Amino acid sequence: MKITMAHGSGGRATSQLIADIFARNFNNEVLSRMEDSAVVPGSGRIAVTTDSFVVNPIFFPGGDIGKLSVCGTVNDLLMSGAQPKYLTCGFIIEEGAQSGELERIAASMAQTASEAGVTIVAGDTKVIEGNGGVYINTAGVGFVPEGVNISASLCQEGDAVLVSGYLGEHHAAILSARMGIENQILSDCAPLGEMVQSMQEAGVRIKAMRDVTRGGLATVLHEFAVSSDCCVELEENRLPVSAPVKGFCGLLGLDPLYMGNEGKMTAVVAGEDAPLALECMKKSRYGENAAIIGHISQKEKGKILLTTPIGGTRILSELIGEGLPRIC
Amino acid sequence: MKITMAHGSGGRATSQLIADIFARNFNNEVLSRMEDSAVVPGSGRIAVTTDSFVVNPIFFPGGDIGKLSVCGTVNDLLMSGAQPKYLTCGFIIEEGAQSGELERIAASMAQTASEAGVTIVAGDTKVIEGNGGVYINTAGVGFVPEGVNISASLCQEGDAVLVSGYLGEHHAAILSARMGIENQILSDCAPLGEMVQSMQEAGVRIKAMRDVTRGGLATVLHEFAVSSDCCVELEENRLPVSAPVKGFCGLLGLDPLYMGNEGKMTAVVAGEDAPLALECMKKSRYGENAAIIGHISQKEKGKILLTTPIGGTRILSELIGEGLPRIC
Repeated sequence: MKITMAHGSGGRATSQLIADIFARNFNNEVLSRMEDSAVVPGSGRIAVTTDSFVVNPIFFPGGDIGKLSVCGTVNDLLMSGAQPKYLTCGFIIEEGAQSGELERIAASMAQTASEAGVTIVAGDTKVIEGNGGVYINTAGVGFVPEGVNISASLCQEGDAVLVSGYLGEHHAAILSARMGIENQILSDCAPLGEMVQSMQEAGVRIKAMRDVTRGGLATVLHEFAVSSDCCVELEENRLPVSAPVKGFCGLLGLDPLYMGNEGKMTAVVAGEDAPLALECMKKSRYGENAAIIGHISQKEKGKILLTTPIGGTRILSELIGEGLPRIC
Repeated sequence: MKITMAHGSGGRATSQLIADIFARNFNNEVLSRMEDSAVVPGSGRIAVTTDSFVVNPIFFPGGDIGKLSVCGTVNDLLMSGAQPKYLTCGFIIEEGAQSGELERIAASMAQTASEAGVTIVAGDTKVIEGNGGVYINTAGVGFVPEGVNISASLCQEGDAVLVSGYLGEHHAAILSARMGIENQILSDCAPLGEMVQSMQEAGVRIKAMRDVTRGGLATVLHEFAVSSDCCVELEENRLPVSAPVKGFCGLLGLDPLYMGNEGKMTAVVAGEDAPLALECMKKSRYGENAAIIGHISQKEKGKILLTTPIGGTRILSELIGEGLPRIC
């Protein structure tokens, strides 16, 4: 079935679409109440976040826009030290989209939400003119335990910097799909709850966390350097990059430091806790290639210094100008 | 300045756009932390909702997509008996949009959020190809006081049905703008917090509430009839419709019962409380034309019966087929 403007008019066609595809896949007691808002148990401290997903193509090696839309928001909650609880999802569907595609997307969201332990409690569907595109916004609510305080502004001299695995995979997978290049690169799109929980339970003193998305690792670490008014020192030969992505980047002149992932995180932790944090990451799902990649100093405040394998030093800025459009 | 794909790539252009327009207008301490999630005080029971806005045109008589995006989500929270607290907003901007328009939209959102008493705590900006269109998703979190229990499924025989003012104004304003018809019809787009609070403080026993949006009053009341397995009996000559909208509908063959508002609500309250509820609505901002329009019975379960001025009876279905596309 092709989606038409009638599916967005708020009448019977809209109800039918929601019932047949979204409510059925996201099936839960809260959503099935179909009220204007979901009333759910709260907590004394909550985390709230939102992200829209406009990735092109909507199905790509290693994932799809649905999986991405759950991972992105769940990971944003986790990075603030929150336990992800509730998601909302707003679909903006272009006329001409296929209901079969929406079905696959919804099933993928449901499966990822289940893995991540979140419930989709509210949704909305709109239809616009166009050529079958699909855009998804998810917003998330998580509970923040007492005493948890994680922020880009809390990095201090002596802290260690880790990354949870290979850089650039999502970016390289999307770009490959868009250029019709066949290779073995898969998007790393994944929810990082197990990894964060593992570090928290082990008592790792986490100062700052970010998932590495648009703009890549350099952009994220630049935020840490600026927010904490510190220097992030990185060693280039410690940065984990897979052989296929290294080859892909060499071919196209891309830098993995500015390429987005969707299932990787960077963490700044107390220096002494770095080996423990690394162990937690490595034993978690999606963390086997984690690495300690550098440390925090006062050398050049607000900047990232990269030591190259031949002993040179480069200052890394955040991403400037045009990255890959519609990567997430 | 024209928005380009670079504004969506997650690098410096994205940061600049967010800082210059969104962060400046939505200026608050939580948002300015610029973390992946906003960590804010919570509550034991929360309401969560989301809506995407794709209205066309984005500026229309009586409002704009920004005002609409705040009112829509705030009203959805209110309709569940929640006190609206936090909003997130996700912008999907088509290449070619003017930054001046985004500025107006952001200012309008900020002003409406201020009136509604909500804080915009998280945001996201994406850019897609296109012709300058703007789409906004807002999600909202509200606190639900103990003991509050409002649901479409709680309507009972003897309850009264009210509507807070003239029907069809938003729909008529959007359609007029799109057709280039000049008239005095303004969108009724408004946040309904004062009205709901007034009823709650007066102790009105509210069973169900809904804002009257896509699909119009008939679609909303049809939900009540189905969810509560009851009959909604309406008297046509009690339905408030302004003279200009009446004229507009006559001209175009439209039915105000299926036309969306964005600043009107319908409430089902205990029959004895109907006069008090009406008084509360009428003395509130945006409620001067409120009316008691019918009652709940067991006559035809799951249906709406409309008594016409000449004594006839019509069964009203929900909106079927194509309503006005992109009305919100």
